[in-house]
Amino acid sequence: MPSETVEKLLAGDKRALSRVLTWVENGSADGRDAIRELYSHTGQAHVVGITGPTGSGKSTLTGTIARALRKRDKTVAIVAVDPTSPFTQGAILGDRIRMQDLTSDPGVFIRSMATRGALGGLAASTNEVVAVMDASGKDIVIVETVGAGQDEVEIAETAHTTIVVNIPGAGDDMQAIKAGILEIADILVINKADLPNADSVFKQLHIFTDLQRKPGWDVPILKTVAHKEQGIDELLDAIDKHWGFLESSGQLTALSRKRARRQLLATAQSILLERVVTVADGSIDELTERIASRSLDPRSAAEQLIAKSEA
Amino acid sequence: MPSETVEKLLAGDKRALSRVLTWVENGSADGRDAIRELYSHTGQAHVVGITGPTGSGKSTLTGTIARALRKRDKTVAIVAVDPTSPFTQGAILGDRIRMQDLTSDPGVFIRSMATRGALGGLAASTNEVVAVMDASGKDIVIVETVGAGQDEVEIAETAHTTIVVNIPGAGDDMQAIKAGILEIADILVINKADLPNADSVFKQLHIFTDLQRKPGWDVPILKTVAHKEQGIDELLDAIDKHWGFLESSGQLTALSRKRARRQLLATAQSILLERVVTVADGSIDELTERIASRSLDPRSAAEQLIAKSEA
Repeated sequence: MPSETVEKLLAGDKRALSRVLTWVENGSADGRDAIRELYSHTGQAHVVGITGPTGSGKSTLTGTIARALRKRDKTVAIVAVDPTSPFTQGAILGDRIRMQDLTSDPGVFIRSMATRGALGGLAASTNEVVAVMDASGKDIVIVETVGAGQDEVEIAETAHTTIVVNIPGAGDDMQAIKAGILEIADILVINKADLPNADSVFKQLHIFTDLQRKPGWDVPILKTVAHKEQGIDELLDAIDKHWGFLESSGQLTALSRKRARRQLLATAQSILLERVVTVADGSIDELTERIASRSLDPRSAAEQLIAKSEA
Repeated sequence: MPSETVEKLLAGDKRALSRVLTWVENGSADGRDAIRELYSHTGQAHVVGITGPTGSGKSTLTGTIARALRKRDKTVAIVAVDPTSPFTQGAILGDRIRMQDLTSDPGVFIRSMATRGALGGLAASTNEVVAVMDASGKDIVIVETVGAGQDEVEIAETAHTTIVVNIPGAGDDMQAIKAGILEIADILVINKADLPNADSVFKQLHIFTDLQRKPGWDVPILKTVAHKEQGIDELLDAIDKHWGFLESSGQLTALSRKRARRQLLATAQSILLERVVTVADGSIDELTERIASRSLDPRSAAEQLIAKSEA
């Protein structure tokens, strides 16, 4: 089954793409087989990460970028990563509705993905989703994330070009800097730039980019008003220019190697744990109990668990 | 060396506590030995997580709570988790300055901790820091986090009582709900409640708590003005009440077991990876290259890496 579906996916079939993504998200064997088959077709797409604090209009901006890319005859896949509640397991997808007009375009594919509570779930799964979209032949894969935290840093490691979206007057500006997300930006965007204080945010960001130079690349600070499609052309040009810089500077190769290493180790880790859990399943409850009652520390317990799985 | 330092830590020595935390954060063998020794002394502290969007005044609130707890003769340890840049590895600690008056109090211990970029670094390390603070005999351990994302969900799994801080008029209210962080709250706080719109936020949060009931526990919605120390007593009472609920309902035991299991598996995973990396170090570069050049998918490469480490 996977082979047939993968062939359709490679030929650009949306339903096949959708099906493979479901397999991958569920961590099924079909998903693994599909990725094995399609992997040699990856490495073509420009992966663009879009992040920023809540309320910055990331989703609207993502939609506007996608529409503008279509006008330039580029095909686009969007994965919107929504942090999930550990209770409901469901993501609230209000923002996605704003992109509905795009879903009927054959050159656009949109997928919402819930982050997982599972150990190391997020990064591995996002990488795999991006790989599948990449193999489907889309020119640009956009990874849009909600919130500001560890996720963003991880997603910057997945993307080639990371856009950090700011808005005028969104609380204390130093807070954003503290969160460390400005530093992952290849392109800084001030969205809702028709609001007051846009210039003040611009100046602050400018001071920041002066302090935190990236070798060979001047991080541009662009103003947009996404819902009025203002500043979008300049943003697309900057995205293009950054890709050119990555290629000509050799950083694209370096990035690709760094990411490959990370995926190798993360995958090895999850395979190893899976094995231990399968073999030593009976000991997990007992060792858990001993940690909970404080009669054994987690590390000693983990060492015993591994020893049992290898006995 | 660890034994002697651990004894001092157990006797309440601040410098010993500080030293052990440094070992733990560096992932050193001394840190592991120390945790092995002190682990049987953990499980006493009430671990309180404080989170919320940037600009909500979490740090000021944390400081105010700590001062109020001291008036009730409780000892307090605070770990402030700052997302770190993958580039500078340094956390900007502006907020910490607001707590400086507390550092001279022998009943208060404050530590800033940078989140790590490493695989699975955050959760393991936060748990260990909390365990060390717990063993040092503090009544309350507060884990304060910046941002809103995966980190928060993980930290809710570390804390007994999670407080989510909101502010009036902080952008689109639905955004906060979407981020899923309201759902992890045991207590909801509207800080800066002297700002306009506090009542409108209260109503919205009320609708939310009506929709998302927690079995046996009505999530209280409290108004505070942290810098004026308003509403803090009510908040402390709610924290106490939640602890009582956890104890009497049996959820404390359930939480402790769930957390123990998670730590067991996370630790096993990191030990296993460490081993593979040590044994098969030479193959990592070659396999990385093959993933980067798309001639091998990450899962097949990881399987080969594991096979080599076991050959």
